[in-house]
Amino acid sequence: VPKVSQEHLDARRAQILDGARRAFSRWGYEGTTVARLEEETGLSRGAIFHYFKGKRDLFVQLALDVDRSYRQLIMAEGFDAAIRAMANESAEWIGVVLETHAQLRHDPELEKLMTPSPEDQMRLIEWFRDRQEDGTFRADVEVMELGRFATMVLNGLALRVVAGDETDPEATIRLLNDALAPRE
Amino acid sequence: VPKVSQEHLDARRAQILDGARRAFSRWGYEGTTVARLEEETGLSRGAIFHYFKGKRDLFVQLALDVDRSYRQLIMAEGFDAAIRAMANESAEWIGVVLETHAQLRHDPELEKLMTPSPEDQMRLIEWFRDRQEDGTFRADVEVMELGRFATMVLNGLALRVVAGDETDPEATIRLLNDALAPRE
Repeated sequence: VPKVSQEHLDARRAQILDGARRAFSRWGYEGTTVARLEEETGLSRGAIFHYFKGKRDLFVQLALDVDRSYRQLIMAEGFDAAIRAMANESAEWIGVVLETHAQLRHDPELEKLMTPSPEDQMRLIEWFRDRQEDGTFRADVEVMELGRFATMVLNGLALRVVAGDETDPEATIRLLNDALAPRE
Repeated sequence: VPKVSQEHLDARRAQILDGARRAFSRWGYEGTTVARLEEETGLSRGAIFHYFKGKRDLFVQLALDVDRSYRQLIMAEGFDAAIRAMANESAEWIGVVLETHAQLRHDPELEKLMTPSPEDQMRLIEWFRDRQEDGTFRADVEVMELGRFATMVLNGLALRVVAGDETDPEATIRLLNDALAPRE
């Protein structure tokens, strides 16, 4: 049996996820059939489902990647960078993510899969706490509430992107930073 | 032919809308069948569709009522009241509204129906401008951007309500007001 390299496996997984993301953006979650997944990935259903259990598994993986990449961006470059990135997202893709979050909210198994691990959540809270301690963020509001507020602004922006509503990310950044800044 | 009073017509319309809202909350937009509309309203399909063209028309009317009631609440009692009201909404109902907004975003006719009139939009902008002029809100950021930011916070809160995530409305109100307040 020839040994398949880890690089090959990783590249194949990435190829499938890229194609699946295009399929979901174009056809929505419900409209993404196995035939369309084959078309967009350029791979057979056998190959696709060798790497992922099914359509739902593919979607969960992509949605988790979005969540993780935003958390990483926030911790590496701050909320300013996350807001600029969200303002540039594709309406179709973010629309599918929100739509599916909403549709499947009665699916406890999926909800569990989509919830970030306590460690990931804690890391982001620590990021906020560090900024409280160095005086960037205000200390007179609970650190959890600062995180929730910033996330609400980012999610509210996601809804504007989905609706195709114009938004100036720089004004959003300025107002968010003023909300989080210490009061004189 | 007996004359039907306006009060009777209005009461019947309200009865249908109430029942439809319950049906949509319970079964989702797709799952709300005509039989379920009959059950929740206590009226026959003939009676229901005498007042409304169909399921979509009923939904649009309810969603427009949500939008309008929030705009009225903001102008009468401010964003603080709107945030407290949103924090108390039913996750099911707000979930259906968001889900349908997202699902039907590729339906230009529906999008047109769901867009507030320019007069309604202008009235809310004027409300923000009045508060800029009396010094409640900052004047160093465009009035449109203040409105967008406050709406993003309210919509971000709606997403938290749908997800069943706990939020302290008073902390949200405090942070939003600090973002909108004039800087010393």
